[in-house]
Amino acid sequence: VWAANRVSDLLGVRYPIVQAPMSGFTTPELVAAVSNAGGLGSLGAALLAPDALRAAIDDVRRLTDRPFGVNLFVWPEAPQASAEAIAAMSEALAPYRAELGLPEPQQKPSAPPPGLADAQLALVAEARVPVFSFTFGIPPLAAVKDAGCVVLGTATTVAEAVELERAGVDVVVAQGAEAGGHRGTFLGRLERSLVGGLALVPQMVDRIRLPVIAAGGIMDGRGIAAALALGAEGVQLGTAFLSCPESGTPTPHMDALVDASDESTVVTHVYSGRPARTIETALIDTLERSGLEPLPFPLQAALLAEIRTAAAEQSRPDLMFLLAGQAAALSRPLPAGELVETLVRETEDVLRRLS
Amino acid sequence: VWAANRVSDLLGVRYPIVQAPMSGFTTPELVAAVSNAGGLGSLGAALLAPDALRAAIDDVRRLTDRPFGVNLFVWPEAPQASAEAIAAMSEALAPYRAELGLPEPQQKPSAPPPGLADAQLALVAEARVPVFSFTFGIPPLAAVKDAGCVVLGTATTVAEAVELERAGVDVVVAQGAEAGGHRGTFLGRLERSLVGGLALVPQMVDRIRLPVIAAGGIMDGRGIAAALALGAEGVQLGTAFLSCPESGTPTPHMDALVDASDESTVVTHVYSGRPARTIETALIDTLERSGLEPLPFPLQAALLAEIRTAAAEQSRPDLMFLLAGQAAALSRPLPAGELVETLVRETEDVLRRLS
Repeated sequence: VWAANRVSDLLGVRYPIVQAPMSGFTTPELVAAVSNAGGLGSLGAALLAPDALRAAIDDVRRLTDRPFGVNLFVWPEAPQASAEAIAAMSEALAPYRAELGLPEPQQKPSAPPPGLADAQLALVAEARVPVFSFTFGIPPLAAVKDAGCVVLGTATTVAEAVELERAGVDVVVAQGAEAGGHRGTFLGRLERSLVGGLALVPQMVDRIRLPVIAAGGIMDGRGIAAALALGAEGVQLGTAFLSCPESGTPTPHMDALVDASDESTVVTHVYSGRPARTIETALIDTLERSGLEPLPFPLQAALLAEIRTAAAEQSRPDLMFLLAGQAAALSRPLPAGELVETLVRETEDVLRRLS
Repeated sequence: VWAANRVSDLLGVRYPIVQAPMSGFTTPELVAAVSNAGGLGSLGAALLAPDALRAAIDDVRRLTDRPFGVNLFVWPEAPQASAEAIAAMSEALAPYRAELGLPEPQQKPSAPPPGLADAQLALVAEARVPVFSFTFGIPPLAAVKDAGCVVLGTATTVAEAVELERAGVDVVVAQGAEAGGHRGTFLGRLERSLVGGLALVPQMVDRIRLPVIAAGGIMDGRGIAAALALGAEGVQLGTAFLSCPESGTPTPHMDALVDASDESTVVTHVYSGRPARTIETALIDTLERSGLEPLPFPLQAALLAEIRTAAAEQSRPDLMFLLAGQAAALSRPLPAGELVETLVRETEDVLRRLS
């Protein structure tokens, strides 16, 4: 089953199993452990300034000589929030800041400095990162393609996949509605672009020539075998790798994954201003019920940054954003390399049972 | 792959492929054609008065000697809507009634007569229908079980599946978020119980001892093979059978299925008062934007009944409710028996490719 696979060939890996690039959670140790086990580790690097990005890439390369990926966001240009909107959202957050012992915010929430994306992209090309992936749109791809990077784009609908194919990506990641974290949607309307993997993958496979990697709700060999049956040539797992000791996942977040059920998550804009799937917490519930419009991405995330950090440090999962897919309850706290080996063995077992 | 399967054994069929009971669409001809081909045809009988139900069961039996199913709703007790709510919704619908040449409604929308569910259930037991299935809750099961009916319940979450197992059903249908038509949800909150099949099926399989039938977004052998990989022992397809000539699907509805994309559907309460997945039409969009609370199930459906019928007769898909799952675009207009044979062959091909 692992032989003669376009995704493995393109990525240069033994198994077409990608560890999803989860910004803030993907340490160089995690990335390298996945790649060393024959999968593709990916660094969620969207928030890293160029120096930090360079250092992280160097760290990964010190830990593995196998291919790995780097993921960036397509940042919006100069997002703006009115002083009133910031004041209203800050007021809603004030009781939580107080509970966590945080002072009044000292500055307005701000977006990354202009030019960050260009600098990051140039660095990815310069470092000849083996695999480049991106989310939230389509960046200029000429430089990374010239540098020989294999390019992965994320699509939540068939129309987005068609657009990515036109733009020259090499592989499309089909993000099903089950997926944890940010929705990659860049063309569709949120509600209509929450398409479950069982429906999304075969429709996408039928409409583009590029190989498709299935993502969303895949936690074990059953999900991988299912994705392959649907016509995907690879899989991307995010939530499954959050429980690895090499990840940067705070302990209360790991605990919440194990305690989750299939009904634990919601898709909310209050985390960052863009829709993201996360375990519903008291903070999310309060903000959703407040009727306040979240600030535009990424200003909402910036406004919440101190709360997120303090809540994790003080073990207050009720005030954290516990990003997770709909199958988080199937999480297993295995070292990343062992998890990859387990996934491979399980997939083979499922396919043997069905043959 | 078809041998040694608990679902096939329990249902007494050759293939564990169930044609979903879609009230209003499932003619005796469709049901019998599926059963004759080795699957399980199912009559969506919720709206049939006892005499009509008896006649439909007799019709199916004249057309096949194979097992088949009958599905009923668990009706709410005495749903009420205020005169103001009815007037407001009627006013919103008035322009559409006028467009379709319908007069002012002559009577208040009403629920089925009290006692309908009891009478239907008694008839299913008396007729010793081979397979009994139900949606929207758990009816009293003693009579149908004493009559030897195999009992299927619908769950949209793991918690609902656990409840069905406790109540004594024989098989649980796991309805993923992809599914067209009414959500079967009877315990959960809508947003949290829209769980994609890739996440729902393995979690359910792990938590109950009963066999699980996967439903939602399955349109071909790829979906069936995927469901089996996830641990389901059978599949239920609804949308796929809407395009069969034996179905009662109006032509504009069939046309809309072929023209659909993965982004065509929404889950709305405006169809019946309960959430249902349907292709978004102008009528749905208008009612959603009106801010009016739909009447409680099934009064909303009753209020819309004349519009639905007239719109279908006058080929006005924009004013119809085009129930459909998220993979409707994969619809194929094959006779039902041929569709079952095709599904079987495709599934075997997929599993051969993966072995």
